[in-house]
Amino acid sequence: MILIHTPSPKEVAAYLQLFRAALPQQVFISLEEMHDPALVEYVVTWGPPVGLFASLGNLKAVFALGAGVDKLLARDDLSPALPIYRLLDGGMAPQMAEYVRFGVLSYQRHMDIYRRQQAAGVWKMLAPRLPGEVQVGVLGLGEIGRAVAQALAADGYAVSGWSRTPRQLDGINCLFGDDGLAELLAGSDVLACVLPSTPETRGLLNAERLASLPAGAMLINAGRGDLLDEEALLAQLDSGHLRCAQLDVFASEPLPADSRLWQHPAVTVTPHIAAITLRSQAVEQIVANLARLRAGEEGQGKVVRERGY
Amino acid sequence: MILIHTPSPKEVAAYLQLFRAALPQQVFISLEEMHDPALVEYVVTWGPPVGLFASLGNLKAVFALGAGVDKLLARDDLSPALPIYRLLDGGMAPQMAEYVRFGVLSYQRHMDIYRRQQAAGVWKMLAPRLPGEVQVGVLGLGEIGRAVAQALAADGYAVSGWSRTPRQLDGINCLFGDDGLAELLAGSDVLACVLPSTPETRGLLNAERLASLPAGAMLINAGRGDLLDEEALLAQLDSGHLRCAQLDVFASEPLPADSRLWQHPAVTVTPHIAAITLRSQAVEQIVANLARLRAGEEGQGKVVRERGY
Ligand SMILES: NC(=O)c1ccc[n+]([C@@H]2O[C@H](COP(=O)([O-])OP(=O)(O)OC[C@H]3O[C@@H](n4cnc5c(N)ncnc54)[C@H](OP(=O)(O)O)[C@@H]3O)[C@@H](O)[C@H]2O)c1
Ligand SMILES: NC(=O)c1ccc[n+]([C@@H]2O[C@H](COP(=O)([O-])OP(=O)(O)OC[C@H]3O[C@@H](n4cnc5c(N)ncnc54)[C@H](OP(=O)(O)O)[C@@H]3O)[C@@H](O)[C@H]2O)c1
Repeated sequence: MILIHTPSPKEVAAYLQLFRAALPQQVFISLEEMHDPALVEYVVTWGPPVGLFASLGNLKAVFALGAGVDKLLARDDLSPALPIYRLLDGGMAPQMAEYVRFGVLSYQRHMDIYRRQQAAGVWKMLAPRLPGEVQVGVLGLGEIGRAVAQALAADGYAVSGWSRTPRQLDGINCLFGDDGLAELLAGSDVLACVLPSTPETRGLLNAERLASLPAGAMLINAGRGDLLDEEALLAQLDSGHLRCAQLDVFASEPLPADSRLWQHPAVTVTPHIAAITLRSQAVEQIVANLARLRAGEEGQGKVVRERGY
Repeated sequence: MILIHTPSPKEVAAYLQLFRAALPQQVFISLEEMHDPALVEYVVTWGPPVGLFASLGNLKAVFALGAGVDKLLARDDLSPALPIYRLLDGGMAPQMAEYVRFGVLSYQRHMDIYRRQQAAGVWKMLAPRLPGEVQVGVLGLGEIGRAVAQALAADGYAVSGWSRTPRQLDGINCLFGDDGLAELLAGSDVLACVLPSTPETRGLLNAERLASLPAGAMLINAGRGDLLDEEALLAQLDSGHLRCAQLDVFASEPLPADSRLWQHPAVTVTPHIAAITLRSQAVEQIVANLARLRAGEEGQGKVVRERGY
């Protein structure tokens, strides 16, 4: 028996329909339909209620309906021995590439400055900047970061990327480790973060690292909110060292009403929409993974608890 | 003798240097250096002063430092017999593709709505829209329009294009004539205009045609300001029939201080920067054209006065 749960009953209904159509011989249920927790072998979920897993004595694996699993790993009702599978891309990579491209294009074409000029009624051309004259640093070169870096390189930007382990990607200056990070930061007109939140990455974008970006740089954060020190960012924007920021994720979500980020003229706030799981692709991937597990094979996208992603 | 003139002395100096380096055996001069107008055979120009051409008795041709020649054709000191050559692309096509892409991406990803939500402190996800679910109509399929249409098609948008004569472009639904225009307007979530200003196109985007766009559509105008009835656009934005507009060109430029477009929340104003002539590419093209003319051949990019572009 496979339990499907997300905070939205409408979404659960949509997923149930898709899963049942894809695997008619298997039993998929919602939380409301779960009469005997002992029968649940698999959970497909996003944002499951506190304590849920403790009641499921015969659970074999959890499928996350997203790419980031920081919240799942932080729970105390999930045995560390239980495998967690995350979505690989799941339609999110091209969306993230669009989201980051929007920010980079806005920066390259001075659209943020023109918007401020417009508000002040100022008609003034700025010197054009070609894509090759804008250096973009992408933090994270996983399923999503790779797609972002490669889309930007195809647009003509000068792209560097950063990961934990050494990577090789055509047309991308790939860096890793502490030295790699220092080099990337010092050379990024736009820094785009699509890292997962892990014990190693939390708080990575602190005052010191933001200060090491070139003057007039832009920050895009679409990884996780706890990677960034929001107060340090505000200070760098206020001082004028950083030109602008486009933020999709926040230390606390929804972004609290009293956050200064809402009204800061140099900040674009979006409500965690950079890359949304596409249901059909998610179902396809989980169905394929279920088949692998049933056949005794290893599933794809298995989370490595020790590294936190 | 070849006269170089634009309204900016700095720019003239830069062009003189490039032309002299490219063709050392020819004489290039600025307006200040012109002692005998009768010696001037060619003029390379953008925004020449009123009456200039009347004094040049031995002029053989004019090279415009841009793609649009509406202002040149409207002058009364230029003999209709005198050939005018405009720039073909000249580095402008990729820039225009970026400018239009920014608007389309903003529309597809609801960035304009998220900006308004941000101003109101509202955290609310909107249903994602894939590029293939956004229909873009491109008015003008010339040097620039073709590049715009093809870049958008490569991004995954459903693209239609419109021209005076029938055209064929891979992956673009090519339309022409009055019926073609009606079909394109009715099916364009985003209408991007990169037409030249001619007797036929002036006033094209009037109240009736704007009303025939689907509800919630966006207008991008980067062709010429006189193609659009600005009051009609404001009325459609105020009524909510159109969602937003991104405008680079205006009936009067600089946009007058009292224009309502400056402060309208649904309007993005840019100061005629969508596509700026790149000097090196302009010089390369004009040098090649000069060689053709000197060899008695036809130059490239010759303007057809009768059709107005
Ligand atoms: N805002 C949104 O809408 C949204 C949507 C989807 C995902 N996300 C976020 O995007 C994240 C990335 O997703 P993904 O699918 O690309 O994940 P992934 O495939 O697991 O890739 C993670 C990348 O981060 C790198 N990384 C991890 N820890 C690191 C460290 N300590 N130092 C340097 N690099 C490190 C990894 O390096 P290696 O290559 O060496 O392993 C890898 O390149 C998710 O975890 C989630 O937080 C946000
Ligand atoms: N905002 C900026 O920064 C900026 C920069 C550069 C250019 N521009 C504008 O962009 C315009 C286009 O440049 P371009 O180099 O692409 O010009 P082009 O090569 O001459 O192409 C003009 C296009 O418009 C079409 N057209 C002309 N009259 C028409 C009519 N009555 N009905 C339907 N289609 C018509 C032409 O149709 P056919 O294909 O049938 O000939 C052609 O496809 C310029 O004239 C200028 O106004 C603006």
